[in-house]
Amino acid sequence: MSHEVDQRIVGELNRRFYAAHESKDIAAMSELWSHGPDVVCIHPGWPILRGWAAVGESWRRIFAGPSDNQFIVTNDQLNIADGIAWITLDENLMSAGGTGTIAATNVFAKIDGRWKVVHHHGSPVATRRSVASP
Amino acid sequence: MSHEVDQRIVGELNRRFYAAHESKDIAAMSELWSHGPDVVCIHPGWPILRGWAAVGESWRRIFAGPSDNQFIVTNDQLNIADGIAWITLDENLMSAGGTGTIAATNVFAKIDGRWKVVHHHGSPVATRRSVASP
Repeated sequence: MSHEVDQRIVGELNRRFYAAHESKDIAAMSELWSHGPDVVCIHPGWPILRGWAAVGESWRRIFAGPSDNQFIVTNDQLNIADGIAWITLDENLMSAGGTGTIAATNVFAKIDGRWKVVHHHGSPVATRRSVASP
Repeated sequence: MSHEVDQRIVGELNRRFYAAHESKDIAAMSELWSHGPDVVCIHPGWPILRGWAAVGESWRRIFAGPSDNQFIVTNDQLNIADGIAWITLDENLMSAGGTGTIAATNVFAKIDGRWKVVHHHGSPVATRRSVASP
Protein backbone atom coordinates (compact mmCIF):
# COMPACT_ATOMS: atom_id res chain seq x y z
CA MET A 1 0.00 0.00 0.00
CA SER A 2 1.34 3.41 -0.87
CA HIS A 3 2.42 5.96 1.69
CA GLU A 4 -0.33 8.26 0.47
CA VAL A 5 -3.00 5.67 1.23
CA ASP A 6 -1.53 5.07 4.69
CA GLN A 7 -1.47 8.83 5.29
CA ARG A 8 -5.14 9.12 4.41
CA ILE A 9 -6.06 6.17 6.63
CA VAL A 10 -4.14 7.54 9.61
CA GLY A 11 -5.62 11.02 9.11
CA GLU A 12 -9.10 9.54 9.05
CA LEU A 13 -8.34 7.46 12.16
CA ASN A 14 -7.24 10.64 13.92
CA ARG A 15 -10.49 12.39 12.96
CA ARG A 16 -12.51 9.44 14.23
CA PHE A 17 -10.57 9.58 17.51
CA TYR A 18 -11.82 13.10 18.17
CA ALA A 19 -15.31 12.30 16.89
CA ALA A 20 -15.52 9.39 19.34
CA HIS A 21 -14.32 11.67 22.12
CA GLU A 22 -16.85 14.40 21.34
CA SER A 23 -19.72 11.95 21.17
CA LYS A 24 -18.48 10.02 24.24
CA ASP A 25 -18.75 6.82 22.20
CA ILE A 26 -16.80 4.18 24.12
CA ALA A 27 -17.48 1.51 21.47
CA ALA A 28 -16.01 3.71 18.73
CA MET A 29 -13.03 4.70 20.90
CA SER A 30 -12.41 1.05 21.79
CA GLU A 31 -12.50 0.04 18.11
CA LEU A 32 -9.88 2.67 17.23
CA TRP A 33 -7.29 1.49 19.77
CA SER A 34 -5.03 -1.50 19.80
CA HIS A 35 -6.02 -3.64 22.78
CA GLY A 36 -2.45 -4.73 23.45
CA PRO A 37 -0.64 -4.63 26.80
CA ASP A 38 1.85 -2.05 25.49
CA VAL A 39 -0.53 0.77 24.54
CA VAL A 40 0.00 3.98 26.48
CA CYS A 41 -2.25 6.92 27.35
CA ILE A 42 -1.29 10.10 29.21
CA HIS A 43 -4.32 12.33 29.75
CA PRO A 44 -3.56 15.97 30.69
CA GLY A 45 -2.28 16.01 34.25
CA TRP A 46 -2.64 12.25 34.63
CA PRO A 47 0.06 9.71 35.30
CA ILE A 48 1.01 7.25 32.55
CA LEU A 49 -1.58 4.55 31.91
CA ARG A 50 -0.28 1.33 30.35
CA GLY A 51 -2.20 -1.44 28.60
CA TRP A 52 -5.68 -1.40 27.13
CA ALA A 53 -7.39 -2.49 30.36
CA ALA A 54 -6.27 0.70 32.14
CA VAL A 55 -6.56 2.93 29.06
CA GLY A 56 -10.06 1.71 28.17
CA GLU A 57 -11.20 2.16 31.77
CA SER A 58 -9.92 5.77 31.72
CA TRP A 59 -12.02 6.56 28.64
CA ARG A 60 -15.07 4.96 30.25
CA ARG A 61 -14.60 7.15 33.33
CA ILE A 62 -14.05 10.30 31.28
CA PHE A 63 -17.06 9.62 29.07
CA ALA A 64 -19.21 8.96 32.17
CA GLY A 65 -18.21 12.37 33.55
CA PRO A 66 -20.11 15.62 33.21
CA SER A 67 -17.87 17.33 30.66
CA ASP A 68 -19.21 18.01 27.21
CA ASN A 69 -16.22 18.89 25.07
CA GLN A 70 -16.09 20.10 21.56
CA PHE A 71 -12.71 20.09 19.83
CA ILE A 72 -11.35 22.13 17.01
CA VAL A 73 -8.14 20.47 15.88
CA THR A 74 -5.51 22.79 14.45
CA ASN A 75 -1.78 22.83 13.74
CA ASP A 76 -1.66 19.13 12.92
CA GLN A 77 1.42 17.48 11.47
CA LEU A 78 1.64 13.85 10.41
CA ASN A 79 4.92 11.95 10.41
CA ILE A 80 4.81 8.51 8.85
CA ALA A 81 7.28 5.65 8.54
CA ASP A 82 6.93 1.94 7.82
CA GLY A 83 4.01 0.81 9.93
CA ILE A 84 4.25 3.66 12.43
CA ALA A 85 2.81 7.16 12.25
CA TRP A 86 2.49 9.98 14.72
CA ILE A 87 0.45 13.14 14.63
CA THR A 88 1.04 16.22 16.76
CA LEU A 89 -1.73 18.77 16.99
CA ASP A 90 -3.55 21.32 19.12
CA GLU A 91 -6.87 20.28 20.63
CA ASN A 92 -8.77 23.54 21.04
CA LEU A 93 -11.40 22.79 23.64
CA MET A 94 -14.67 24.65 23.79
CA SER A 95 -16.45 23.20 26.78
CA ALA A 96 -19.10 24.69 29.02
CA GLY A 97 -16.37 25.40 31.56
CA GLY A 98 -14.36 27.59 29.20
CA THR A 99 -11.77 27.24 26.48
CA GLY A 100 -8.23 25.98 26.42
CA THR A 101 -5.61 24.28 24.32
CA ILE A 102 -4.16 20.81 24.76
CA ALA A 103 -1.02 19.90 22.82
CA ALA A 104 -1.30 16.25 21.81
CA THR A 105 0.84 13.45 20.44
CA ASN A 106 -1.03 10.52 18.88
CA VAL A 107 0.88 7.44 17.70
CA PHE A 108 -0.56 4.87 15.30
CA ALA A 109 0.78 1.42 14.41
CA LYS A 110 -0.16 -0.93 11.60
CA ILE A 111 -0.94 -4.20 13.34
CA ASP A 112 -1.85 -7.24 11.24
CA GLY A 113 -2.49 -4.89 8.33
CA ARG A 114 -4.77 -2.50 10.22
CA TRP A 115 -3.81 0.90 11.64
CA LYS A 116 -4.63 1.32 15.33
CA VAL A 117 -4.09 3.97 17.97
CA VAL A 118 -1.31 2.79 20.30
CA HIS A 119 -0.46 5.99 22.18
CA HIS A 120 -2.11 9.26 23.18
CA HIS A 121 -0.43 12.02 25.17
CA GLY A 122 -2.11 15.33 25.93
CA SER A 123 -0.73 18.27 27.89
CA PRO A 124 -2.32 21.61 28.71
CA VAL A 125 -0.72 24.62 27.08
CA ALA A 126 -0.24 27.39 29.62
CA THR A 127 -2.10 30.56 28.72
CA ARG A 128 0.92 32.68 29.47
CA ARG A 129 4.04 30.84 28.48
CA SER A 130 6.90 30.94 30.91
CA VAL A 131 10.28 29.35 30.45
CA ALA A 132 9.57 26.31 32.55
CA SER A 133 12.11 23.58 32.75
CA PRO A 134 10.98 20.39 31.06
CA MET B 1 20.99 -5.22 12.96
CA SER B 2 18.96 -7.14 15.49
CA HIS B 3 16.08 -5.68 17.46
CA GLU B 4 18.06 -6.25 20.65
CA VAL B 5 20.93 -4.09 19.39
CA ASP B 6 18.51 -1.33 18.36
CA GLN B 7 16.84 -1.54 21.78
CA ARG B 8 20.18 -1.08 23.51
CA ILE B 9 21.12 1.85 21.28
CA VAL B 10 17.79 3.61 21.83
CA GLY B 11 17.96 3.01 25.58
CA GLU B 12 21.45 4.50 25.66
CA LEU B 13 20.29 7.48 23.56
CA ASN B 14 17.50 8.07 26.04
CA ARG B 15 19.96 8.03 28.96
CA ARG B 16 22.21 10.49 27.14
CA PHE B 17 19.19 12.75 26.55
CA TYR B 18 18.68 13.14 30.32
CA ALA B 19 22.43 13.38 30.97
CA ALA B 20 22.64 16.26 28.47
CA HIS B 21 19.66 17.92 30.14
CA GLU B 22 21.09 17.59 33.65
CA SER B 23 24.46 18.96 32.59
CA LYS B 24 22.87 21.68 30.41
CA ASP B 25 25.09 20.52 27.56
CA ILE B 26 23.64 22.06 24.40
CA ALA B 27 26.26 20.42 22.16
CA ALA B 28 25.36 16.98 23.48
CA MET B 29 21.62 17.69 23.21
CA SER B 30 22.07 18.98 19.66
CA GLU B 31 24.02 15.84 18.68
CA LEU B 32 21.25 13.57 19.96
CA TRP B 33 18.47 15.19 17.91
CA SER B 34 17.65 14.97 14.24
CA HIS B 35 18.00 18.47 12.81
CA GLY B 36 15.15 18.00 10.36
CA PRO B 37 12.24 20.36 9.82
CA ASP B 38 9.75 17.77 11.09
CA VAL B 39 11.10 17.22 14.61
CA VAL B 40 8.70 18.18 17.39
CA CYS B 41 9.14 19.21 21.01
CA ILE B 42 6.43 19.94 23.57
CA HIS B 43 7.92 21.10 26.86
CA PRO B 44 5.59 20.98 29.89
CA GLY B 45 3.04 23.76 29.50
CA TRP B 46 4.55 24.97 26.23
CA PRO B 47 2.94 25.10 22.82
CA ILE B 48 4.17 22.71 20.13
CA LEU B 49 7.58 23.59 18.70
CA ARG B 50 8.30 22.33 15.19
CA GLY B 51 11.64 21.97 13.39
CA TRP B 52 15.13 21.86 14.84
CA ALA B 53 15.63 25.65 14.65
CA ALA B 54 12.82 26.25 17.15
CA VAL B 55 13.51 23.12 19.19
CA GLY B 56 17.24 23.81 19.51
CA GLU B 57 16.55 27.42 20.50
CA SER B 58 14.19 26.22 23.26
CA TRP B 59 16.91 24.00 24.73
CA ARG B 60 19.39 26.90 24.60
CA ARG B 61 16.91 29.10 26.48
CA ILE B 62 16.16 26.43 29.06
CA PHE B 63 19.83 25.63 29.62
CA ALA B 64 20.59 29.36 29.99
CA GLY B 65 17.97 29.61 32.75
CA PRO B 66 18.51 29.35 36.47
CA SER B 67 17.05 25.90 37.04
CA ASP B 68 19.33 23.09 38.11
CA ASN B 69 17.40 19.91 37.61
CA GLN B 70 18.31 16.41 38.54
CA PHE B 71 16.21 13.61 37.09
CA ILE B 72 15.49 10.16 38.30
CA VAL B 73 13.87 8.30 35.45
CA THR B 74 11.42 5.58 36.42
CA ASN B 75 8.55 3.59 34.92
CA ASP B 76 10.15 3.50 31.47
CA GLN B 77 8.77 1.38 28.66
CA LEU B 78 10.33 1.01 25.23
CA ASN B 79 8.28 0.20 22.16
CA ILE B 80 10.25 -0.53 19.02
CA ALA B 81 9.34 -1.14 15.38
CA ASP B 82 11.28 -0.96 12.12
CA GLY B 83 13.28 2.24 12.34
CA ILE B 84 11.02 3.89 14.92
CA ALA B 85 11.02 3.57 18.69
CA TRP B 86 9.26 5.39 21.47
CA ILE B 87 9.84 5.43 25.19
CA THR B 88 7.36 6.56 27.82
CA LEU B 89 8.66 7.29 31.30
CA ASP B 90 8.39 9.40 34.42
CA GLU B 91 10.92 12.18 34.89
CA ASN B 92 11.16 12.62 38.65
CA LEU B 93 12.56 16.09 39.15
CA MET B 94 14.56 17.04 42.19
CA SER B 95 15.33 20.71 41.69
CA ALA B 96 16.11 23.38 44.22
CA GLY B 97 12.52 24.60 43.84
CA GLY B 98 11.00 21.29 44.89
CA THR B 99 10.08 17.95 43.44
CA GLY B 100 7.62 16.86 40.81
CA THR B 101 6.89 14.32 38.13
CA ILE B 102 6.78 14.86 34.39
CA ALA B 103 5.27 12.14 32.20
CA ALA B 104 7.25 12.01 28.96
CA THR B 105 7.04 10.53 25.49
CA ASN B 106 10.31 10.35 23.54
CA VAL B 107 10.31 9.19 19.91
CA PHE B 108 13.43 8.02 18.09
CA ALA B 109 13.93 7.38 14.37
CA LYS B 110 16.71 5.60 12.53
CA ILE B 111 17.84 8.12 9.92
CA ASP B 112 20.58 7.12 7.47
CA GLY B 113 21.44 4.24 9.78
CA ARG B 114 21.70 6.31 12.96
CA TRP B 115 19.10 6.62 15.70
CA LYS B 116 18.11 10.19 16.52
CA VAL B 117 15.61 11.91 18.80
CA VAL B 118 12.75 13.24 16.66
CA HIS B 119 10.11 14.04 19.27
CA HIS B 120 9.90 14.91 22.96
CA HIS B 121 6.67 15.58 24.85
CA GLY B 122 6.56 16.24 28.58
CA SER B 123 3.54 16.97 30.75
CA PRO B 124 3.32 17.65 34.48
CA VAL B 125 1.54 14.99 36.52
CA ALA B 126 -0.90 16.62 38.91
CA THR B 127 -0.11 15.87 42.54
CA ARG B 128 -3.73 15.06 43.26
CA ARG B 129 -5.26 13.34 40.31
CA SER B 130 -8.67 14.47 39.28
CA VAL B 131 -10.75 13.16 36.41
CA ALA B 132 -9.92 15.95 33.99
CA SER B 133 -11.11 15.71 30.46
CA PRO B 134 -8.27 15.24 27.99
